[in-house]
Amino acid sequence: MAAKKPKLKVISLGGLQEIGKNMTVFEYGQDIIVVDCGLAFPEEEMLGIDMVIPDVTYLVKNIDRVRGIILTHGHEDHIGALPYILRELNVPIYGTRLTIGLVENKLKEHSLMDTTKRNVVMAGETIRLGAFDVEFIHTNHSIADAVALAIHTPVGVVVHTGDFKVDYTPIDGTPIDILRFAELGKEGVLLLLSDSTNASRPGFTMSEKTVGGVFDRIFDETPDNRIMIATFSSNIHRIQQIINSAVKHNRKIAIIGRSMLNAVKTAVELEYLTMPENTLIDISEVKDYSDHELVIITTGSQGEPMSALSRIAASEHRQIAVKPDDKIIFSSSSIPGNEKMISKVVNELIKKGADVVYEGMADVHVSGHACQEEQKLMLTLTQPKYFMPVHGEYAHLMSHKETAISLGMDKKNVFVMAIGEVLELTEDSAKVNGTVKSGQVLIDGLGIGDVGNIVLRDRKHLSEDGLIVVVVAIDKVDGFVISGPDIISRGFVYVRESEDLMEGARQVVAEVLQECEFRNTPSWSYMKNTIKEELKNYVWQKTKRSPMILPIIVEV
Amino acid sequence: MAAKKPKLKVISLGGLQEIGKNMTVFEYGQDIIVVDCGLAFPEEEMLGIDMVIPDVTYLVKNIDRVRGIILTHGHEDHIGALPYILRELNVPIYGTRLTIGLVENKLKEHSLMDTTKRNVVMAGETIRLGAFDVEFIHTNHSIADAVALAIHTPVGVVVHTGDFKVDYTPIDGTPIDILRFAELGKEGVLLLLSDSTNASRPGFTMSEKTVGGVFDRIFDETPDNRIMIATFSSNIHRIQQIINSAVKHNRKIAIIGRSMLNAVKTAVELEYLTMPENTLIDISEVKDYSDHELVIITTGSQGEPMSALSRIAASEHRQIAVKPDDKIIFSSSSIPGNEKMISKVVNELIKKGADVVYEGMADVHVSGHACQEEQKLMLTLTQPKYFMPVHGEYAHLMSHKETAISLGMDKKNVFVMAIGEVLELTEDSAKVNGTVKSGQVLIDGLGIGDVGNIVLRDRKHLSEDGLIVVVVAIDKVDGFVISGPDIISRGFVYVRESEDLMEGARQVVAEVLQECEFRNTPSWSYMKNTIKEELKNYVWQKTKRSPMILPIIVEV
Repeated sequence: MAAKKPKLKVISLGGLQEIGKNMTVFEYGQDIIVVDCGLAFPEEEMLGIDMVIPDVTYLVKNIDRVRGIILTHGHEDHIGALPYILRELNVPIYGTRLTIGLVENKLKEHSLMDTTKRNVVMAGETIRLGAFDVEFIHTNHSIADAVALAIHTPVGVVVHTGDFKVDYTPIDGTPIDILRFAELGKEGVLLLLSDSTNASRPGFTMSEKTVGGVFDRIFDETPDNRIMIATFSSNIHRIQQIINSAVKHNRKIAIIGRSMLNAVKTAVELEYLTMPENTLIDISEVKDYSDHELVIITTGSQGEPMSALSRIAASEHRQIAVKPDDKIIFSSSSIPGNEKMISKVVNELIKKGADVVYEGMADVHVSGHACQEEQKLMLTLTQPKYFMPVHGEYAHLMSHKETAISLGMDKKNVFVMAIGEVLELTEDSAKVNGTVKSGQVLIDGLGIGDVGNIVLRDRKHLSEDGLIVVVVAIDKVDGFVISGPDIISRGFVYVRESEDLMEGARQVVAEVLQECEFRNTPSWSYMKNTIKEELKNYVWQKTKRSPMILPIIVEV
Repeated sequence: MAAKKPKLKVISLGGLQEIGKNMTVFEYGQDIIVVDCGLAFPEEEMLGIDMVIPDVTYLVKNIDRVRGIILTHGHEDHIGALPYILRELNVPIYGTRLTIGLVENKLKEHSLMDTTKRNVVMAGETIRLGAFDVEFIHTNHSIADAVALAIHTPVGVVVHTGDFKVDYTPIDGTPIDILRFAELGKEGVLLLLSDSTNASRPGFTMSEKTVGGVFDRIFDETPDNRIMIATFSSNIHRIQQIINSAVKHNRKIAIIGRSMLNAVKTAVELEYLTMPENTLIDISEVKDYSDHELVIITTGSQGEPMSALSRIAASEHRQIAVKPDDKIIFSSSSIPGNEKMISKVVNELIKKGADVVYEGMADVHVSGHACQEEQKLMLTLTQPKYFMPVHGEYAHLMSHKETAISLGMDKKNVFVMAIGEVLELTEDSAKVNGTVKSGQVLIDGLGIGDVGNIVLRDRKHLSEDGLIVVVVAIDKVDGFVISGPDIISRGFVYVRESEDLMEGARQVVAEVLQECEFRNTPSWSYMKNTIKEELKNYVWQKTKRSPMILPIIVEV
C-alpha cells in the first residue's frame, strides 16, 4: 500500500484581518514555499516604530524545507520585509524583472546583494520548487509587472491572485491574462486566494488609461503655468502617463524625492518606462526653463512630513519653491490615517498661491485593486472548489465572502481566516487545523523585534504626561539622606512657571524620606514605592496628570 | 464739528484657517461683544493634550469693555472653551434655551454656575449690548436651536451665520428664517460672515428628514434583531428620528455613554425631544426585553477608545455585549483623523458577528453644514457689501471666496483672513489693519496653557525613542566618583534582552568620568554634556535611535 499522501497546508503569516505585511506559506510534505514578504506601516499606538514585519519563527524553524520566496509585485507591502527577513531566512527569491529590480535597490542599501540569490521569472513561465510548480500569470495592478500565481501541487491547483485589477486598456498594452485563468478554471482549481482590498466597493475599478485623459485635459487647460504632480513612486504606469502628457505638451520633466528617483531609474533601465531623449532634466536645470516648459514629478502624495512635497509646501526644499499659480496635482488617494497630514500640505500649498487638485476634485487617480464586479469575474473564471479571501481587514474579507456566496458558492467552502491558522487541503477536503506562531515584529532603527509591549507602554505613558525623576543619595550604612531629594521633570510642565508645584513635589518626597528614616525603613523598594505613590497622588490632585515617576536612590 | 465716528473692528480669535475653537470679536468704541467660545481637538503632534482653546489675552486686557459672549449653538467647537475662559473673563453669556441648557451642564461640572450670568434669548429676539443690537435668527444645523446673528452696529448690519444648513423639512418643523435674511439683504448688509465648512462641496446638503426614512427602512428590514445606533450626542434631531422609528416599531430605547445621557436628559427637560412615556428604559433593564423590542443609542461613532461603543466592541462594557446579528448603525461621518479608530471598532464588531452599517453603506447621515448651493443662497439673500468666509481651513475659505466671486462679488471685497487680524469697517470701507494677540492655549488636565512647545518637544522625543537616565554620585570635595554610573532606561529597549548594549553604555559613561577625573574637569555641566554627547553617539551607532539622555550628577 502506498504511503498516505500528505496534505497541502496553507498558512498566512500576514495580510489577513490587516492591511499590509502580506505573506502566505504553502507547505507540502518536505517542501515549503513562501509568497510575498511585505511590511506594514505602524499603527498609531506604535510610537517611534518605523515599520512592522511578519513573525517568521515558523519558517526559520523549518528553514531546511523552505525552497524560496516568490514575489507577486514590487510594492512595499509585498517586498518591504525582505531585507530584514533574509537575514534569518536566506533563501532564493523569485519575481518578475521589475520586481527583482526594485528588490535589488533594497538589497544594495542593506548590503545583501552578495548573499541573496535572485531569480527573474517572466509571466507565462513556470518554475519548479520542490513539490510545487509555480506558474506566473500576468495581471494588472498599480505597478508594472505584477503577477498572480497558479501553484500546481500534488493535491490540486491553487490560484493566488496577488494584488490585481482588471484593466482592458492598461498602459503596457497587456490586459490581465483572463484566458489563462479561464483555462485553469476549466481544468479545475482547488483553492483561490484573492485580493480583498476593495471588497466593500461595488462596481468596477476604472482603467489606468482614464487618468491619462484627465492629465491631457488639465495640461490643455494650463498652458502657461508650471505643473507639479505628486504620486506613488512605484506607480510606473502613472508616471508613464505623466511623461506622455508632458511630451505631447512640449514640457521637460524633473523628478524629486529619493524613492521616486530610484524607481524611475530602475524602470528606465529595465525599459518599463519609455520617453524621448532629453525629456528628463535634472532638478538643478529647472531654473533654465520657463514655467510652461516644465512638469515636476514628486513624492509626498500622502503628506509625509519628510517628503519632497511637504518640504516644498513648508518652503524648506533646497531647489524648488512654490510659485503663485503653480498647478499641483495629487494623483493619489489618501491611505487611511494620512488624511490630516495631506490636508495640511494642501492648505500650505494653496496659501502660497498654488492651484491644487486633490482628492475628489478630478479623476486624477484610480485604484489598483479589483472592486466587486472584478472579484466576481475572478471567482467565475477560476471556479474554485475552496475560497480564501486574502489581503484586507476583517470587514473586507467578510464582504468578499458575501460576494462569493452571492455567486452560488457554499459558505462552508469559504475560509475567512486569521494569520497563523493552518488550512489543510486534500483533493476533496479543506479544513482549518491548528496554528503556527505568527504576529508582528516591530522595526525601530536597527532593532528588529527589540521593542515590545513594555517599551511601547512606557513610550505612550511618557508621550502623554512626561516624566518626573526623583534622585536621593542615602548613606549605605545608617540609611540617612545625604543629598536630595532633587526633582527633575521632562515633558510634564514648563518648570519655570511651575516652581510652586515642583517645590511642593520636593516636599512630598522629603516627608516620605523623613518618615522612612524615622521608621528605619525595611527596604529601598518600599521607599521607592512610597515615593512613587505619594508623589503620584500629589501631582494628580494638583494637575490631573499622571507623569511617569522614576525614583532613583543612590547608595553612598 | 462732531467727533470722528469710530470704526467697527471684527477680529477672529479662532476658527479661521483651522477647524474648531470658533470665536469672533466685534468692537465699536467702548464696546466689545464676543460670538462663540469653542474648543478644538488637539493636533496629532500635541501629545497628551486634552483640548485647545483660543488665546483671549486681548479680551482679558479689555475686560472692562466686554459686554458679553453670544453663543450661536451648543456644539463643543462653539461653547467648549467657556469653562476655561470664563475664569479669566467672567462676562454674561447669551444663547437660546437648548444652548444655555448644554452650557449649564458644563458649568455644573466646573462649579461655575454661581458665578456665571446666563441669559436665554430666543430666535427672533434682539438684545442690546453697548453699541450693538444683536438679533437672533433661526437656522438649521445638526443641533437644535441654532441661530445666526444680525449685529446692528452704528456703521451697518453684520450678519454672522454661525454654523448653518438650509433644511426645508427640518425635524423641528421650522426651516431657516430665509425671509429675515432676505429682509436684511433688502435693507442692506455691510458684512457677511458665513460658515465655510463644506465650501469645497458642490450641491446641496440633504435634509435631516431623509435620514429618518432610511432608519424606517432598516427597522422594517430588521424585524427580529437588536438595533444599536451610534451618533453624536448633541444631534438631538437625529436622536428624535431614532426615537420616532423605535416607537413606530414598538421598540424600547436604552441610552449609553455619559455625554449622550446628559444631552438627552437636557433635551427632554427643555422639550427639544419628545417621546411617549415608558419608551426610555434604563440600560439595566435591557435584559428584560427581547432583541426585537430594543434600540440602543450610544456614543462612540468616531471610534473614541473610551466611548461606550468602543468598550462594547472590545467586550469591556459592563452592561452590553455584542450578539451575533445585532444590527449596528454608525449614523455619523468620520471626522478627519478618526478613520483608523473607526475602522478598528467596525472590524471588531463584525468579528463578533454584528451586521454593521457604516460610512457610505446607506444614507444614515447627512451633514449639518451648507454646501455650495446653500452658500450661494445665503450670499444672494443677504447681498453683503463685504464678505468674510469663516469656520474652515484655508482651502475651504478660498473655495467660499471663489463661490462669492462666481456670484459677481468683487474679489477686493472678500476678506480671507487669519486669526488675530483686525478688519476695520466704516459705512463704505473695509480694510485689514493690524493684529491683536491670538493663538492656541493647550489644556492638559487642570493645566491651562502650562504645556508649551518645550514640553511638547520633550514628549515627542520621549514617545519616539524613550529615555536613558545616567546617575553618578561624586564627591563634592575631590571630584571623585563614589557611586555609579548607573543606567536606567524607559521606552528605549527591552533591557533584559539588551544587556550587552546597556553594559556598553555604562562603560562609555565610565570612560567619560575617568577622563574627567583625570583632567580635573572644569564643571559639572561640561561633564554632563560630554556624557550626553558620547552616549548619544554610542547608542546611535548601535541602534540608529536617539533616546533622550538625562545625566544626573549627585554631589555628596
